[in-house]
Formats: sequence, C-alpha cells, structure tokens
Amino acid sequence: MEGVRLVEEALGSGCRVEAVLFSESGERHRERLAALIAREEMGFPVLQTTDRLFEGIADTEHPQGVAALVVPGKFVLEEVLEGRGKRTQDPPSQTEGGAPGPLIVVLAGVQDPGNVGTILRTAAAFGATGIVTAATGQSGTASPYAPKAMRASAGAALHLPIVGGVGLGILLTQLRVRGIRSLASCVAESAGAVAPWEVDWREPVALLVGNEGAGLPEDVVASADARVHVPMATRVESLNAAAAAAVVLYEAFRQRRSNP
Amino acid sequence: MEGVRLVEEALGSGCRVEAVLFSESGERHRERLAALIAREEMGFPVLQTTDRLFEGIADTEHPQGVAALVVPGKFVLEEVLEGRGKRTQDPPSQTEGGAPGPLIVVLAGVQDPGNVGTILRTAAAFGATGIVTAATGQSGTASPYAPKAMRASAGAALHLPIVGGVGLGILLTQLRVRGIRSLASCVAESAGAVAPWEVDWREPVALLVGNEGAGLPEDVVASADARVHVPMATRVESLNAAAAAAVVLYEAFRQRRSNP
Repeated sequence: MEGVRLVEEALGSGCRVEAVLFSESGERHRERLAALIAREEMGFPVLQTTDRLFEGIADTEHPQGVAALVVPGKFVLEEVLEGRGKRTQDPPSQTEGGAPGPLIVVLAGVQDPGNVGTILRTAAAFGATGIVTAATGQSGTASPYAPKAMRASAGAALHLPIVGGVGLGILLTQLRVRGIRSLASCVAESAGAVAPWEVDWREPVALLVGNEGAGLPEDVVASADARVHVPMATRVESLNAAAAAAVVLYEAFRQRRSNP
Repeated sequence: MEGVRLVEEALGSGCRVEAVLFSESGERHRERLAALIAREEMGFPVLQTTDRLFEGIADTEHPQGVAALVVPGKFVLEEVLEGRGKRTQDPPSQTEGGAPGPLIVVLAGVQDPGNVGTILRTAAAFGATGIVTAATGQSGTASPYAPKAMRASAGAALHLPIVGGVGLGILLTQLRVRGIRSLASCVAESAGAVAPWEVDWREPVALLVGNEGAGLPEDVVASADARVHVPMATRVESLNAAAAAAVVLYEAFRQRRSNP
C-alpha cells in the first residue's frame, strides 16, 4: 500500500501490517500516522530509506514517500457468502439502516484494475457484504490488491471480505443452495432483462458483473436467476462497467435502507 | 478523434469532419467506415500515412491506425440551457419517455479528463440535455475534447451541447432567471443536504459537480437552490466523483421516465 491515505486506511483496517516504510521526504507524513503506528498491537518495524531507493520500488510516478506492507484478510467462500469477517472501522450503530442479508458482488472477467477498484469502492459505499472474483473462459479478473486497483478502491478492498479463484459453476450452485438470488448484469438490452428498480434488492442477492467488452459468458447469463440491465435515454449511448455497477448497487442500497 | 470506434461515432454525429486519416495497418478498418465516409455530404479528404508517422501523432500507446479531425459543435449558454442543438443519431421515437425539461450537468473544477469523459458518457446515457464546463477559483475543468476525456466519454461529447468558460456567478443567475433549479453535488455529508431520491428531478434542474478532492467552492454551494448528497452504508466509505455523478443522474433518469 503506497501513499499516506492508503497507509492510513491500512493501519486502521484491522489487517495485519508487516512494516511501514518512510522515505526522507515521506517523513513529513509521519505525524499524521504517528498515533496509528504507536498503538500497542502494532508490533511491526518502521523503516527508513532514501528518496531515490523509494522511487525505485514505488508504483506511482510521484510517490509520497510512505508505504506499508499489508497482509489482506484471507476468506473462504462460505464466509464471504455469509458476510462474515467484514472489516470496518465503523461501529454498527453508525451504519444507516439494517442490512437485510447478503449483497454479494461477483467480478467475472473484469480486466481493468481501475474498474475493479472503483467497483469495490462503490460496493463498500453501498453496503455490499462480500466480493467474489472469478475468471471466465475468456478473461481473468484483475487482482483487487494490484496497486492500481487499490488506489481506485481508496482502500475499500481492506474493508470487504474478498475471495478469489472460485469457479463460476460452483459459485452459482452455492448461491442457489444458500437461497441467494443471482443477478446477471447485462450491458446490452436483452429480452427479459429487468431494470434495477424492478428488482427486489431486500432479498439476499449476488450481482454478477462481466468483462468490459464481452460481458458475462452466455452460459452464466442463462444460469443466473435473472438479468438486470440499466435502461438508457437513447440507444446510441452506453455506460462503462464501473458506472453501470454504481447505479445498480445504489438502487440496491436505496431499497435496503430502513427509511427509503 | 482516434480509434475506429470514436471515428465511427464522429462520422455519425453530425459534427463537421475535416479529414480522416488511415495508417497502413489502419486500412483494415476502412471497410467498417466505408459507408459512412462515402455519404454525399462528406466532402473531406481521406488521407493515408505510414504506421511510423501515425504512431508519432497518436495519443495512445497501441494506435489502431484510424483518426479523424473533427470540429465539435459550438454552442452558446442559451442553447445549452434550453437543450437546443442536441445531436443524436436516435430518432425521437426511440427515446424512452419524454424529457420533462432541461437536465443540465455543470462541471465546475473536475480536473481529471477520465472523470470528465465518464461523467459526459453517463450524462448522455441518462438523458442530460446540456453540459456546462466552468473553472473555479481553485481549479479548472479538463477539456471534454482532450483525447483521454474523449476516450472515456466513448464519443458522448459529440452528442451533447457543451459550452465552456462560463463564470459560475453568471451561470447561477441565468439558471435562476430561467427557472432551472441548481443542485450542488456534495461529497461529504452536510446539514440540509438531501438524498438523490428526495429531489424532484422532473423539474428543470442543473446538477453542479465539483473538484475531485475539494468539491464545489463554498460560495457556489451556498448560492445553489439545494445540496444533494449520496448516502452511504458506512461513514468510512466514499464514492469517486464519476460514480457519484452516475448515481445521481440515474436517479434523475429513473424519475423522468414516463413509466417509472
């Protein structure tokens, strides 16, 4: 995790931190992080290096000179589907509304790390309880922990239970066994697809999001319980993958709030 | 405009095209564009160049070898506020629902060209009738016609009436004179801010979107008719500027459709 904002997020996330590294010019951020680093349970080394060496390991062009080595939480599919192990700084009393059950986001072939990060950030903001990443026959899903995805997620990846490498067939079966409705997000209009406001999001649901260009594999769409499509003003227009996911997750959140 | 998809969009937009350029390897896209280029009203030269020269002028790393020189439509503030001069390939009969009046998006200090492009794409998809770009005291707004913004907008910038360089004071006055409600989009929760679903979007409205970090200038927020904030599941989370705009414009579209 690189940059003062993400390191701060990591230190407050409850994830295990192995080390924090400051460069010479990064020292100016030490005060902001001091209270978090000083906490008793933080037994990791705080290291120093030169600006030149830091630039060599940094992923960004103009690094802020602060980085942390973080071990993200490990989850199994069962925990993610049940929403167990959710990490958040927020005491439950600050949460608006009661979550009526799982709201899972399944990324199936989302290739761009920026899109993966943005969708995770939106998912966290709208109360998703877990994330599954899966590859399709055609494409993999970018790692939520890749530097670009982490920056786009603003650290949200550390607050959500995430599981990867699950086969889509197994996943669809598991969802059915647990009574979680699977909704395939479709970019193109298709017969039988419903608008986001036509879905009852207060039920336990999993939203499947596919590849930016190709969408979800046909057999996955066919096996899902329903298809959801965001209607648009004119047929020439379209939404990018992250914007479409934001809209659908907002609708879920709007319905799930106690006072809609 | 670079790339086969954007050139296609430009040729179909009704905007004036000054020239189309193919590189050697770009020739493979000529067939896809042939029908559009051959139309009678298209009196522009079709030029050819080598791959090497094309790479020299291209903005992308792996150019597709097709580019067009396009003159975007010029609009004055009056036309944009009235939604006149909207360019779209869609005949009105294909438009879902009737637009109940202006839905203006004002970009005030949105610095990232990717965000500007994504917001324009979302605005077009959800039936915005016009776009105003403005600078604030703290920051300018990236040009909608910059290559990165154009790619992120998927050409939507060519379908929308856009006017730039308007002072925010003048704009707020003009909105009031025309009976268009101004809504300041606020990233942080603030007293008196309403949720998107609490706004009546069927009225003529202008949504003001501010800088990614700093938001809208305080005096603009104070002068707007209302503040709109997207509620979130927990206070630690946040939305990026483009995702927040997508959600708010979706809500406007949802309400404006004839059969909500």
